[in-house]
Amino acid sequence: MNNPIIIAVDAMGGDDSPNKIIEGIYLHSKTSLNTEYKIFGNKNLINPLINKYNLPSKRFTIIHTENIIEGEDSALVAAKRGKDTSLWLAIDALKKDEANAIISAGNTGALFLISKLNLKMIEKIDKPALSALWPSKKGMNVVLDLGANIECNTKNLVDFSIMGAALHKALFNHDKPRVALLNIGSEELKGNAMIKDTYQYLNDNKYPLFDFKGYVEGNNIMVGDVDVIVADGFTGNIALKTAEGTSNFIISELKKALSSSLIGKFSSLINYNNLKKFKDKLDPRLYNGAILLGLDKPVIKSHGSTDSIGFANSLKVCEQTIRGKLIDQIKENLS
Amino acid sequence: MNNPIIIAVDAMGGDDSPNKIIEGIYLHSKTSLNTEYKIFGNKNLINPLINKYNLPSKRFTIIHTENIIEGEDSALVAAKRGKDTSLWLAIDALKKDEANAIISAGNTGALFLISKLNLKMIEKIDKPALSALWPSKKGMNVVLDLGANIECNTKNLVDFSIMGAALHKALFNHDKPRVALLNIGSEELKGNAMIKDTYQYLNDNKYPLFDFKGYVEGNNIMVGDVDVIVADGFTGNIALKTAEGTSNFIISELKKALSSSLIGKFSSLINYNNLKKFKDKLDPRLYNGAILLGLDKPVIKSHGSTDSIGFANSLKVCEQTIRGKLIDQIKENLS
Repeated sequence: MNNPIIIAVDAMGGDDSPNKIIEGIYLHSKTSLNTEYKIFGNKNLINPLINKYNLPSKRFTIIHTENIIEGEDSALVAAKRGKDTSLWLAIDALKKDEANAIISAGNTGALFLISKLNLKMIEKIDKPALSALWPSKKGMNVVLDLGANIECNTKNLVDFSIMGAALHKALFNHDKPRVALLNIGSEELKGNAMIKDTYQYLNDNKYPLFDFKGYVEGNNIMVGDVDVIVADGFTGNIALKTAEGTSNFIISELKKALSSSLIGKFSSLINYNNLKKFKDKLDPRLYNGAILLGLDKPVIKSHGSTDSIGFANSLKVCEQTIRGKLIDQIKENLS
Repeated sequence: MNNPIIIAVDAMGGDDSPNKIIEGIYLHSKTSLNTEYKIFGNKNLINPLINKYNLPSKRFTIIHTENIIEGEDSALVAAKRGKDTSLWLAIDALKKDEANAIISAGNTGALFLISKLNLKMIEKIDKPALSALWPSKKGMNVVLDLGANIECNTKNLVDFSIMGAALHKALFNHDKPRVALLNIGSEELKGNAMIKDTYQYLNDNKYPLFDFKGYVEGNNIMVGDVDVIVADGFTGNIALKTAEGTSNFIISELKKALSSSLIGKFSSLINYNNLKKFKDKLDPRLYNGAILLGLDKPVIKSHGSTDSIGFANSLKVCEQTIRGKLIDQIKENLS
């Protein structure tokens, strides 16, 4: 059996919380038998849900908090006044080594700022990066930075390469992830000075953790020939959001087409199972769980609007980052 | 009837040329009765095709050229040695006012470099930009720059806004296109210094040509609430290519799902018409035709791998930029 691990869970963040949080914990607890949950939030709301799902008492502790950080609170205000909230106290448990990772579906800015205030940066890392999972034809990629750092330098992109590779390895048990820089051409000459410098550096300095594969263009992110895609936060965010918008557009056009006539509706019904397989493959709940890399403990953000299945998946991301020794992997490769 | 216009056509560029070029001209000539074509290329290959499609002799002239610029030629080499090629001579016809626009499906770098060498820039425009059509839920957007300029300043982005709005107006007869800057958030505070400066400038200086709508995020490009999306060439190229890759990924997953069982194949067959409607809406031939903006004559690039239908669509783009007085619109709004 795996070693026991402890996840600190902010139960009050995101839509329809704590309902989906407790149901998500319940779902995750069935597949991950040696994980315990420190649940931060209002016990009067949480206890009835714990009873509903019949969660064994040895699997969790509840730390009662009256106050919560709202989604619309500014990160700065939250950091100034939020010391008695579920989010702050969950991060504090991590700081005190009472948990191995923190997860919240709440206010992203507040989660990141309060984490940065309370947790140490990994030595030699200048900037934390936000990373997420991105499906490809052959599996799952890690993409970073997705918006934590608008302007980056070569050192930052090299750090992101190491952190992204360590994450891919921790999540997918990948022996040697393939890392590439997101660029506008695959030739060495293309791109801005910063990207070209990074290319040169990663080409000249081999890391045992990963294989550097040069540049990848936006149209090849989902082909699956690389595992880790590295960009500054501006570029990464543009790519992620554009992919999201394109996907929404195509799915809505497909729905329109398939339901535009009786015969369309009828044949879609016959084809229900196949269409469901297609839908499942694109289900964003599968990819739920963004990881803030660079701090010396794992900090995971669940999408605020996901449901219990999505939240359970992001708990799995927490678990994998802990069991896959994400932070140790990063540290080893920096020294 | 419309005034007569003349399009200079490089008949030798792209896959399967001049076949698709002459068939494309034939298709376009049926819908655009007052357009003439100056066709540059090898008459021994072109004449049999002209006969095949029975193109009336008053609709075209052939300017025979022996030499062509190959797809793999470097732009610099092409510009140095290519003075007797179909591409060069087609651009030269534009320079000499013997045509109103130039189109090629050939070497992109050579088309742009030789155009820049031979045609004048529009006064007050520092950098040309590459723009293209991008479908949205409500119609068609113009997006620029798609890679001509990796690094841009505020003045460039303001120029791109004017040129993109003039293009949207010329193509779609839109009274007042809505322009937005591609950014990573919709709030005024987000983005890099250059984008924020541009926001401030466009907010403070109203142009009669367009309505400035602030920022648009990648996930909203295809929603259709703005018409012209402005970015530096690096960002625009990343967005375009990522959208292309996402679209390829989803369509390939859909195909897999719909043909993964006999019942899937059967019901897809019943649903053929609806699925075809869907496919048609996403058909890249509909959006064929990238426009190089900033030169004082319209320069249009057709995709090299498109077919005659795609090429006919990019001839329509040529026609619309001429009839819509694209260049005059840009000039008026700069002064």
